[in-house]
Amino acid sequence: MINLSCDYCEGCHEKILQRLVETNMVQAPGYSVDDYCASATRLIRKACEDDSVAVHYLVGGTQTNLVMIAAALRPHQGVVGATTCHLNVHETGAIEGTGHKVITLPSPNNDGKITAAQVEEVISLHRNDEGFFHAVQPKMVYISQPTELGTLYTKEELTSLSETCRRLGLYFYVDGARLGYGLACEENDVSIADLAHLTDAFYIGGTKIGALFGEALVIVNPELKEDFRYIIKQRGALLAKGRLLGIQFETLFQDGLYVEIAKTADQLAQRLQQTIEELGFPLMVKSPTNQIFPIFPDELLEKLGEKYVYSYQCRIDETHSAVRLCTSWGTRPEFVDEFCRDLRALAAR
Amino acid sequence: MINLSCDYCEGCHEKILQRLVETNMVQAPGYSVDDYCASATRLIRKACEDDSVAVHYLVGGTQTNLVMIAAALRPHQGVVGATTCHLNVHETGAIEGTGHKVITLPSPNNDGKITAAQVEEVISLHRNDEGFFHAVQPKMVYISQPTELGTLYTKEELTSLSETCRRLGLYFYVDGARLGYGLACEENDVSIADLAHLTDAFYIGGTKIGALFGEALVIVNPELKEDFRYIIKQRGALLAKGRLLGIQFETLFQDGLYVEIAKTADQLAQRLQQTIEELGFPLMVKSPTNQIFPIFPDELLEKLGEKYVYSYQCRIDETHSAVRLCTSWGTRPEFVDEFCRDLRALAAR
Amino acid sequence: MINLSCDYCEGCHEKILQRLVETNMVQAPGYSVDDYCASATRLIRKACEDDSVAVHYLVGGTQTNLVMIAAALRPHQGVVGATTCHLNVHETGAIEGTGHKVITLPSPNNDGKITAAQVEEVISLHRNDEGFFHAVQPKMVYISQPTELGTLYTKEELTSLSETCRRLGLYFYVDGARLGYGLACEENDVSIADLAHLTDAFYIGGTKIGALFGEALVIVNPELKEDFRYIIKQRGALLAKGRLLGIQFETLFQDGLYVEIAKTADQLAQRLQQTIEELGFPLMVKSPTNQIFPIFPDELLEKLGEKYVYSYQCRIDETHSAVRLCTSWGTRPEFVDEFCRDLRALAAR
Amino acid sequence: MINLSCDYCEGCHEKILQRLVETNMVQAPGYSVDDYCASATRLIRKACEDDSVAVHYLVGGTQTNLVMIAAALRPHQGVVGATTCHLNVHETGAIEGTGHKVITLPSPNNDGKITAAQVEEVISLHRNDEGFFHAVQPKMVYISQPTELGTLYTKEELTSLSETCRRLGLYFYVDGARLGYGLACEENDVSIADLAHLTDAFYIGGTKIGALFGEALVIVNPELKEDFRYIIKQRGALLAKGRLLGIQFETLFQDGLYVEIAKTADQLAQRLQQTIEELGFPLMVKSPTNQIFPIFPDELLEKLGEKYVYSYQCRIDETHSAVRLCTSWGTRPEFVDEFCRDLRALAAR
Repeated sequence: MINLSCDYCEGCHEKILQRLVETNMVQAPGYSVDDYCASATRLIRKACEDDSVAVHYLVGGTQTNLVMIAAALRPHQGVVGATTCHLNVHETGAIEGTGHKVITLPSPNNDGKITAAQVEEVISLHRNDEGFFHAVQPKMVYISQPTELGTLYTKEELTSLSETCRRLGLYFYVDGARLGYGLACEENDVSIADLAHLTDAFYIGGTKIGALFGEALVIVNPELKEDFRYIIKQRGALLAKGRLLGIQFETLFQDGLYVEIAKTADQLAQRLQQTIEELGFPLMVKSPTNQIFPIFPDELLEKLGEKYVYSYQCRIDETHSAVRLCTSWGTRPEFVDEFCRDLRALAAR
Repeated sequence: MINLSCDYCEGCHEKILQRLVETNMVQAPGYSVDDYCASATRLIRKACEDDSVAVHYLVGGTQTNLVMIAAALRPHQGVVGATTCHLNVHETGAIEGTGHKVITLPSPNNDGKITAAQVEEVISLHRNDEGFFHAVQPKMVYISQPTELGTLYTKEELTSLSETCRRLGLYFYVDGARLGYGLACEENDVSIADLAHLTDAFYIGGTKIGALFGEALVIVNPELKEDFRYIIKQRGALLAKGRLLGIQFETLFQDGLYVEIAKTADQLAQRLQQTIEELGFPLMVKSPTNQIFPIFPDELLEKLGEKYVYSYQCRIDETHSAVRLCTSWGTRPEFVDEFCRDLRALAAR
Repeated sequence: MINLSCDYCEGCHEKILQRLVETNMVQAPGYSVDDYCASATRLIRKACEDDSVAVHYLVGGTQTNLVMIAAALRPHQGVVGATTCHLNVHETGAIEGTGHKVITLPSPNNDGKITAAQVEEVISLHRNDEGFFHAVQPKMVYISQPTELGTLYTKEELTSLSETCRRLGLYFYVDGARLGYGLACEENDVSIADLAHLTDAFYIGGTKIGALFGEALVIVNPELKEDFRYIIKQRGALLAKGRLLGIQFETLFQDGLYVEIAKTADQLAQRLQQTIEELGFPLMVKSPTNQIFPIFPDELLEKLGEKYVYSYQCRIDETHSAVRLCTSWGTRPEFVDEFCRDLRALAAR
Repeated sequence: MINLSCDYCEGCHEKILQRLVETNMVQAPGYSVDDYCASATRLIRKACEDDSVAVHYLVGGTQTNLVMIAAALRPHQGVVGATTCHLNVHETGAIEGTGHKVITLPSPNNDGKITAAQVEEVISLHRNDEGFFHAVQPKMVYISQPTELGTLYTKEELTSLSETCRRLGLYFYVDGARLGYGLACEENDVSIADLAHLTDAFYIGGTKIGALFGEALVIVNPELKEDFRYIIKQRGALLAKGRLLGIQFETLFQDGLYVEIAKTADQLAQRLQQTIEELGFPLMVKSPTNQIFPIFPDELLEKLGEKYVYSYQCRIDETHSAVRLCTSWGTRPEFVDEFCRDLRALAAR
């Protein structure tokens, strides 16, 4: 079977593997106070063009989100996100598990994105009333870049969200589980330095882009930095051998490896998307990054399923479904070629 | 000012006051193990036509909901309710504060009610997929009778929800903060015994119907009864002088007082609603109980606001808003008459 | 049976009852924004000699503690208290239920009190080590005045605790569930104004001293005031008819009623304690307030138990137990006389 | 510097590294439903002599403890452990963070162990009283094997704890963060199969014994198995590339590698302990496993600290401190020899 269902079905990039082998028996202190983490942090701060940001290394995305939100919010505060956002639908209530409500906004264009105007409105609905303490206080805006649907916020959109948040006293937090695939994408105009400039915190995903595991959380707002390692530890998120995270991010941030390997994945996904469109299949949403969302007849999906693993997205009508196809830094180009060939053949019947 | 904004702006029914005075210096053990509570429980069990139900006395509605839900659910489980339900919009994230997600369903007819078909669908979306452990597990259905919009579920609708819940392994819990106003209403066909038969738990509201404060939580499903008082205590919800709750519910459930006083309130609200309709003002929703939701021009509302306190509901368009008018067991009929007279005069201008 | 087991077995002081009757049908807005609460707050601020304190009215003691602590602490912070303190042993893990550890200190003199030196030590154990984020961060010191054993902190002891907390960046919070019995006691040298001066927050107990229910939480530190009503609401602790709390505290704080009624209770308890000592029975601890802790032979306790309800404290040896006897604002002097007479007779056998 | 401060300062055993390299580009499904995890589970079940146990793979020890406890306990229940246990002192309140109290027992012999008699007593104090719902309900007993002080429970002691727990309706959970060092130790008489027989759940530590990271949680009691992966996911503890955990435990449990590598560490630690004793330095506690706890003059520690990293344990008196020295599967024997040589020289001065 060829797996195109997700971007975490291979191990890690060979350069990372090599570094893990080289450093294996070096003794290092635990809990990310080692030299590898220090070096990775220097590189990430450089990319941020800001030496004052705090960088913390965590193991996975849901973990990073719940630690960040638990650290930032007081008990009565909630986080605002798209109805389709990861927090709301794919974290088994991890955020509610830390006591906080996820306040959801429908994506106006069904592309997984929300707007500054929506944030403005949700705040006005919660605050313009003397009895407002009967509802959760929105205190953070959460988005993903790219979104769950592979789409990208433009720098203008991010700036607008950022300004709105600052004006309204909200934290602005960006989930970058697939950030590399966004950075590497042709239509992208947002840099890591922009994120460091516009957000209060964001994370740079490693698990889905070349690492065995690991996310680098960048905290920009000094308010959010205090006692952060306590929260990491309390949530069971402090890796004993923190060096492993340092080694991986050090490697990813050397010589542009992070973006370089993401670019290949984006290009493979775009090749898939283009072929699918050429063959006349509609898309649920058009995505410029490594995840694409074609709509296929169920019958065709059944055939595809004999050879390819894909991710079921949702039912479109009685005979059609949307699926997710995903490439990664590790996807072999010949798999994509083979899929395109097979799809052409199936479509031709 | 005449207050028609809510049903908790007076103290308590005179019969309750009298009993509190009479029993004031009697010594009773704390924490609701006194004779008054025992007597109230006998009366409530009789109304339930079921001697096996557990009855617990709590101080307020949000408290009752959070205690019930914290006791019933495991950490990864959530509660399903209407988008407009009290849990979701008026409890400052109390349920999320206990770690649980509120999974929301839009009310198909915008009347605050949800349907068995919707419950069925939400379960199928959460469960028919191998990766379902990535989302919260829906485990309880929550409704209010009457709803937040004053409307009532019919016995048929409740039966259908109940059967669906039982088939799907969900708890069915009914918030009866205003239950009396439902029971007393002309179009109602649901009794307390029906609720005891159809639900896993429900509560009978006292705060809004004649008591100084207090809700009687009836637990039907034996699974939910275990160690319940621990949870009450842990949430700071165990009243030291539990006798006060016993005395109030004992009085409300003697000689039909509970329904009798609610009936007067319903009739006054209906008089208001009828007058408003006759004068040509639209309703946001037609309610048969003690809360009504007229739509008025903002200009008229300003005039009314000089003499009457009402509850602002939401903006309808640039010049109109919906408001809530509410009567209670304690509303003086002459206030309603006066309001109708003033409205007529204002409408005639 | 004569109940000497606790100070919440009667209703409320007659003056409060009278005010509840008088005001019963007055319409007032909900949630403690009414005139009665405003008036009570003026009186409490006056007693505090500080017009800037925030005053919130809650229903019970465990509730007040959990709301205060949930509002004050970040997730990784804990509260320091005596091993015997209410938080630690009589709240069914209410504090842990909000996510916070109770860090316990043994009372050096077994009198329920802890010292500034102990606080200093616990902080040094948690903080003087680079790896300190592996343990909970102590952030608040909690004591009761009087303690669970009826004893009192002197003004000097409180000042020392207060200074230590301020120096170490800890909040200092005093549980005054029985504060009146402390204030009224002969050996007491601490006023409400002292508490307002020395603490970050404290509460004035009503439930056990003349009210039907209710505690007045006084927040002194501005940091702790922000958004406080949200937390009250979220924990299910916001009483709909907040007026009831306002009326009760307004009455208690008029013309010195609060301390006056507590004094009678203290005197009755002291009469009991003196008689017990005269008869040669030892005390577990000598208490100057309304709770006393004699040690009796089990055989004698069995006899007493036929007529009197007492509170079992703990086993002392194979044939002796300590019990708690408690008087209240409502204890009839003749009950105390009767107890003394009966005890004398039993002791004489 | 030579690091003897902990057992997680190297990477992983070479056989694991080799397997990670070999399998790196194999595509595998995420979230531990891959073949490597299946194979590891077969091997662990074999060691348990029980094919019905559930095995879940987690990343670290605090994480495993908090997930297990959050899954097992209802909100009002607590976990009983030694005052010195990891849960209580080294997890930054992770357990309280999930809402549960840690009920502590002093270790009678100051060796980190607790006894069945103590468990019996704590239950009787919490349960034999009508008002018991005012305190947390103890529902689980937690121990570590080996303990935080390197000591071991005998099979007889474990059997006694197990029987007591079963009789009293408590779960018995064993933290095996360093289990291998226990299994490998000469004086040990407890096997993995014994743990599977005697406990409701236990975990087999990988992080400290040869793995890069990872713990294998074995759930024996069917009650505790239900919906477990939901809880893992909710706590941010579900590793995307679960294969990594499968590969590591598969390797550790092939051909006895797990115990074999632990044995070397134990022997090195024992060599250290013996030398220290021979030189006349006292021990805080005598440990048969890979952690030892000598007491040294502060002056000598300062000298040692120039070349060796050790773990500060606690102050003994004004001029002496206890420290922890730790060996691991990866400690080089020549480091231990060097330490012994240097210590001898320093002691001879």
